[in-house]
Amino acid sequence: AATSPGEFIVSRTEAPLDLINLIDIETRASRVLAPGAFSYIAGGAGDEWTLRENRNAFNRQLIVPRVLSGKTAPDLRTQILGTAIVSPIIITPVAAHGLAHITAEAGTARGAAAAGTILGVSTVSTLALEQVAAAAAGPKWFHLYMLQDVAYSAKLLRRARAAGYRAIVLTADTTVVGNREDSLRQRFQFPLQPGNLLGDDPAAPIPLARRTFESRLDRKTIEFAIRESGLPVIVKGINHPDDALLAIDAGAAAIQVSNHGGRQLDGAPGAFSVLPAVAKAVNQRVPIIFDSGVRRGQDVFKALASGADVVAIGRPVIYGLALSGWQGVRSVLELLNRELSMTMQLAGVHTVADIRATALQPAV
Amino acid sequence: AATSPGEFIVSRTEAPLDLINLIDIETRASRVLAPGAFSYIAGGAGDEWTLRENRNAFNRQLIVPRVLSGKTAPDLRTQILGTAIVSPIIITPVAAHGLAHITAEAGTARGAAAAGTILGVSTVSTLALEQVAAAAAGPKWFHLYMLQDVAYSAKLLRRARAAGYRAIVLTADTTVVGNREDSLRQRFQFPLQPGNLLGDDPAAPIPLARRTFESRLDRKTIEFAIRESGLPVIVKGINHPDDALLAIDAGAAAIQVSNHGGRQLDGAPGAFSVLPAVAKAVNQRVPIIFDSGVRRGQDVFKALASGADVVAIGRPVIYGLALSGWQGVRSVLELLNRELSMTMQLAGVHTVADIRATALQPAV
Amino acid sequence: AATSPGEFIVSRTEAPLDLINLIDIETRASRVLAPGAFSYIAGGAGDEWTLRENRNAFNRQLIVPRVLSGKTAPDLRTQILGTAIVSPIIITPVAAHGLAHITAEAGTARGAAAAGTILGVSTVSTLALEQVAAAAAGPKWFHLYMLQDVAYSAKLLRRARAAGYRAIVLTADTTVVGNREDSLRQRFQFPLQPGNLLGDDPAAPIPLARRTFESRLDRKTIEFAIRESGLPVIVKGINHPDDALLAIDAGAAAIQVSNHGGRQLDGAPGAFSVLPAVAKAVNQRVPIIFDSGVRRGQDVFKALASGADVVAIGRPVIYGLALSGWQGVRSVLELLNRELSMTMQLAGVHTVADIRATALQPAV
Amino acid sequence: AATSPGEFIVSRTEAPLDLINLIDIETRASRVLAPGAFSYIAGGAGDEWTLRENRNAFNRQLIVPRVLSGKTAPDLRTQILGTAIVSPIIITPVAAHGLAHITAEAGTARGAAAAGTILGVSTVSTLALEQVAAAAAGPKWFHLYMLQDVAYSAKLLRRARAAGYRAIVLTADTTVVGNREDSLRQRFQFPLQPGNLLGDDPAAPIPLARRTFESRLDRKTIEFAIRESGLPVIVKGINHPDDALLAIDAGAAAIQVSNHGGRQLDGAPGAFSVLPAVAKAVNQRVPIIFDSGVRRGQDVFKALASGADVVAIGRPVIYGLALSGWQGVRSVLELLNRELSMTMQLAGVHTVADIRATALQPAV
Repeated sequence: AATSPGEFIVSRTEAPLDLINLIDIETRASRVLAPGAFSYIAGGAGDEWTLRENRNAFNRQLIVPRVLSGKTAPDLRTQILGTAIVSPIIITPVAAHGLAHITAEAGTARGAAAAGTILGVSTVSTLALEQVAAAAAGPKWFHLYMLQDVAYSAKLLRRARAAGYRAIVLTADTTVVGNREDSLRQRFQFPLQPGNLLGDDPAAPIPLARRTFESRLDRKTIEFAIRESGLPVIVKGINHPDDALLAIDAGAAAIQVSNHGGRQLDGAPGAFSVLPAVAKAVNQRVPIIFDSGVRRGQDVFKALASGADVVAIGRPVIYGLALSGWQGVRSVLELLNRELSMTMQLAGVHTVADIRATALQPAV
Repeated sequence: AATSPGEFIVSRTEAPLDLINLIDIETRASRVLAPGAFSYIAGGAGDEWTLRENRNAFNRQLIVPRVLSGKTAPDLRTQILGTAIVSPIIITPVAAHGLAHITAEAGTARGAAAAGTILGVSTVSTLALEQVAAAAAGPKWFHLYMLQDVAYSAKLLRRARAAGYRAIVLTADTTVVGNREDSLRQRFQFPLQPGNLLGDDPAAPIPLARRTFESRLDRKTIEFAIRESGLPVIVKGINHPDDALLAIDAGAAAIQVSNHGGRQLDGAPGAFSVLPAVAKAVNQRVPIIFDSGVRRGQDVFKALASGADVVAIGRPVIYGLALSGWQGVRSVLELLNRELSMTMQLAGVHTVADIRATALQPAV
Repeated sequence: AATSPGEFIVSRTEAPLDLINLIDIETRASRVLAPGAFSYIAGGAGDEWTLRENRNAFNRQLIVPRVLSGKTAPDLRTQILGTAIVSPIIITPVAAHGLAHITAEAGTARGAAAAGTILGVSTVSTLALEQVAAAAAGPKWFHLYMLQDVAYSAKLLRRARAAGYRAIVLTADTTVVGNREDSLRQRFQFPLQPGNLLGDDPAAPIPLARRTFESRLDRKTIEFAIRESGLPVIVKGINHPDDALLAIDAGAAAIQVSNHGGRQLDGAPGAFSVLPAVAKAVNQRVPIIFDSGVRRGQDVFKALASGADVVAIGRPVIYGLALSGWQGVRSVLELLNRELSMTMQLAGVHTVADIRATALQPAV
Repeated sequence: AATSPGEFIVSRTEAPLDLINLIDIETRASRVLAPGAFSYIAGGAGDEWTLRENRNAFNRQLIVPRVLSGKTAPDLRTQILGTAIVSPIIITPVAAHGLAHITAEAGTARGAAAAGTILGVSTVSTLALEQVAAAAAGPKWFHLYMLQDVAYSAKLLRRARAAGYRAIVLTADTTVVGNREDSLRQRFQFPLQPGNLLGDDPAAPIPLARRTFESRLDRKTIEFAIRESGLPVIVKGINHPDDALLAIDAGAAAIQVSNHGGRQLDGAPGAFSVLPAVAKAVNQRVPIIFDSGVRRGQDVFKALASGADVVAIGRPVIYGLALSGWQGVRSVLELLNRELSMTMQLAGVHTVADIRATALQPAV
């Protein structure tokens, strides 16, 4: 591990990782990531108000401890879109894991598989999607940023299906990239080419249309993703009930409530704050995945009690990867599972279904 | 650029200005402005509670991201009082631009024209209103502090019309000057004479009645301004619905909701907080201009969604002028336009009219 | 002026005092007061939550600026219990002015008279009440802490009447002294004997019953004060509507809403928060004096708009006394008058009666 | 007193303790406790949000000062489960007093007896319960963490009865131990064996089942504790009205509203926030003991006014023990009694029953 001005050196460590929680890990990771890379990963849009609000929102709904339930050894197992997982915690797609560790998404894939959960693999992953698929046998979803190059987008979807990906995560909230100002201050430039977008000659520049996200997204984009992939499509970046209904009407197999970790529209509500209204509108017709701000077992519990079926985490996984490669990824997931288990026991619930039936108490 | 105790030296720079946002710019400008000048520009009244509240108020109304709209390339163009502008962002009148840059209001005028928007020129501008008019061809409004010297006030209005100004901005909220305490602590004295109030002998002192603001303002003042200028009159400094109605009844062509950037009555509500009630009372009979606290594209969006037709900014323009002359002014306006465009795209709206039809979500 | 550990030296300065506001003055005074004396004066009870809340409470009611009123030169004059005063701001009784300045209450009396307002003189003033009366001709009220020595209490009341005091302020909220913990930490001991309680031999110790406050106060105490003084009695320390009604029923000529500047019961509401309910119960049968936390002209305005007839200030007057003797006292009062005048003008009101008819706007 | 890395040295001081309040005492105690021990005692779970919220919750209900009541010398005496105590403040069970002082629970017992109140003695006390009983004659309750070794649990209950303990406090909220992260960071290990769990050979390791808490608790656990002890059983750790009803239905003689001082489920409401709903459900069928966050006389008052019969404190007692042995324990209790007495006098109430009949005022 090293940080070096003007040079990009990433961690190669794979030692076991002793974690206290997923808060401290950010500071620890900041010491092994190159400054620009850390800023890119950790930062949010604008004043980072929404980034902070994503955390604060959880403090407005509380979990009343329950006792005398006669329950023990909480059962965290669940499934999403037919894939069994050891807990309701999966990994959301994140760009360029190569910023964090020499093993890039291959490391994350090994860690996710070891922890028994699903990995989302980004359009702009460092490794090609086939390389990630080959790295570990665990379940994976491929993530699509719809590109201006439609044919290439279709090709990516077909490659994903061929490589064994089980679903497509279609990001709907990035029709323009948010103002990540700390990256601008640091004049951060991606030091790595995205493995999925390279042509036959990896040294050649990627054509503009292939590396430019499409800014005009609508229900036809969903239909395109379904048609070209033949896989279930999860529409990610939903904050408004009407958008959830639109996505479902267009055939989405699931939706992902997310504000992109506070990286897109600063001044948007905390993601946890919009979840109940979206869940009410969805009314269990499709599963809801929730991300943006989850760092604690109690956050997972609160999201599920507010209508989510599973939660997804991003940055903490990358921090674990940076600190210890696949072992760090596994440690992050297992720590969060332990926190969730403890929370369930202290809330007197035994299963994921019990969590979903729990009433939270509004903070006064 | 220089700061010097006991001596007044202003910036002469006109290099291109690389901006991150209109928050950082205040710190940057504080390094090139003379301390007393910076304090005069940046400060507010009393404890500066209202100054801070002007910013905080925006955080109580949130923008829910919208996706799958199929929209792209937001169209920011609009008009106000018949003048077409490239975006709903104009420049509010601010005193003594000569504190900030050697080019004074001439620099601001060139920047505003280059950015395609309207410049408000203050009664107490450093340059005479004719000089500002001659500096650039863009649209301008002349601003009146009603003076105790009524005849001179009338003369100013006629000069403004003759010089091609398209409207009059009549400040109604300064019948006594607020307690700007940091200026008192710094014993700040204006180092420059106001160009509009000079007599035939610029070295002679300005008569008291010509440099003393009238403290008794009412509907007759509005009628006076309309009559003497023959131009549309915008009444600036409205916070209460009844005052908006009074202004409209007296013939105002528009009103400007403003608390003078927190420089007048500390303990007043944030300007954004009073906007909805005023807009409801106005009921679209005249356009509403909004200022006080706007620093972000999301603020512009929220103000328009709360009833404003255009917003006006003051301090950031002066900071841009201090840092880079007319190029800085243009950069400030263009940056804010880009932020507004990004916000519109992420909120799924295409036009200014769409913004005005958007429902914000109250923060919980 | 000097501070000296182990020695008690007070300010003798009477130079003119240049004030910015009544916030900064506390820091300035802390430099000329002995540490223990400053702590005694500035401190509150317990965690000082109520001390801070007294200030914060004002931020929950806001003044909407009003324009186009046609009014100018606000008229601050008013009266209380038949005494005309130049503004609705008087001086509440405070112990031991001798801690602050060599002139003690004589200095305060001269300053109050110069500023045209009423001085409250404490039972435990440094100078005897007759000395204070002789120091300046302005109107004065005598303050009674009911003592366990009933006969001596009666004697004090008769002395006050004989010395020309116009009313009695009976403190009802000090049946036990609050936990002023900073004074305990500093092991503060009063360096001065209270002038009103001395016997014929000033060097002899004061009998315990004469320097011990009575802890059993009720309507009979009010009746006692009325009977023995023959003067109007103001009951000070009211926070609950029922206590206001009890006081009025027992013959109180006025009540003073106060939590003793946060020095008695920590965990009590901010005094400004309880004012409206008390005012509603009183329903204008007797005047209401308000103290606890007033530092700004806008605070005076808000208190009057919430039901008070006049406000009283304490600590800022002592700070002015410490910094400049009688000139400091006058400066404090005049500054606050100027702030109130500015606030009235910007709120579009002309008289004290207009303030009382103004609706505040709750902060959101 | 000493702190020493790598070595465990405890205080032996028994000098009189001069206290200002129970806030400062934590800092003072941190200087005499070994760092790991201090962290173990002072820390809470997770982000310590609930730990802080336990304090903050008290600021949302305020005590309106009352005057003219004619009352003096408040009477703090009360009783709980038939035991007369000098005030409604008792000592909650806390593990391992030997971390704080060489006298361990014997010191606490002497201090509690001197102060005239009840001591809770933990299952995991440093001294054996018989040793604590022999140390002082004051009333004591024995606390049970139900162990996986059921027979040993029964034996403990019978030993407690034989030793003269008057009631059993059954902790229901620790079916898994909370994530006390600062202890993890400090790699804190208990340096002492729990005196109650030792076998005939104190040097031999304690069997796992005897030192492992049972994670499956229900009404049968309550019935077991009642049956085996023949004593009244207080169920501790109640936050939800339904759990209170369940405990009462199973025969609990009292319940203790507590979130274990913020040491178990972070993200739980402040304990004071849940008290009113629990008290309403209990409807005076059994007494309610309240702990978690009580540091001030006003907190005691507010808890009693919200439905508690007595309050219990933990950490401050341990801090007093660390600073001055039994004298420190007594000082802590007596200080809190004095604060409660002052609060009662300033609130115009005379007895504990009066407190319970007082309406608090919600903070705005």
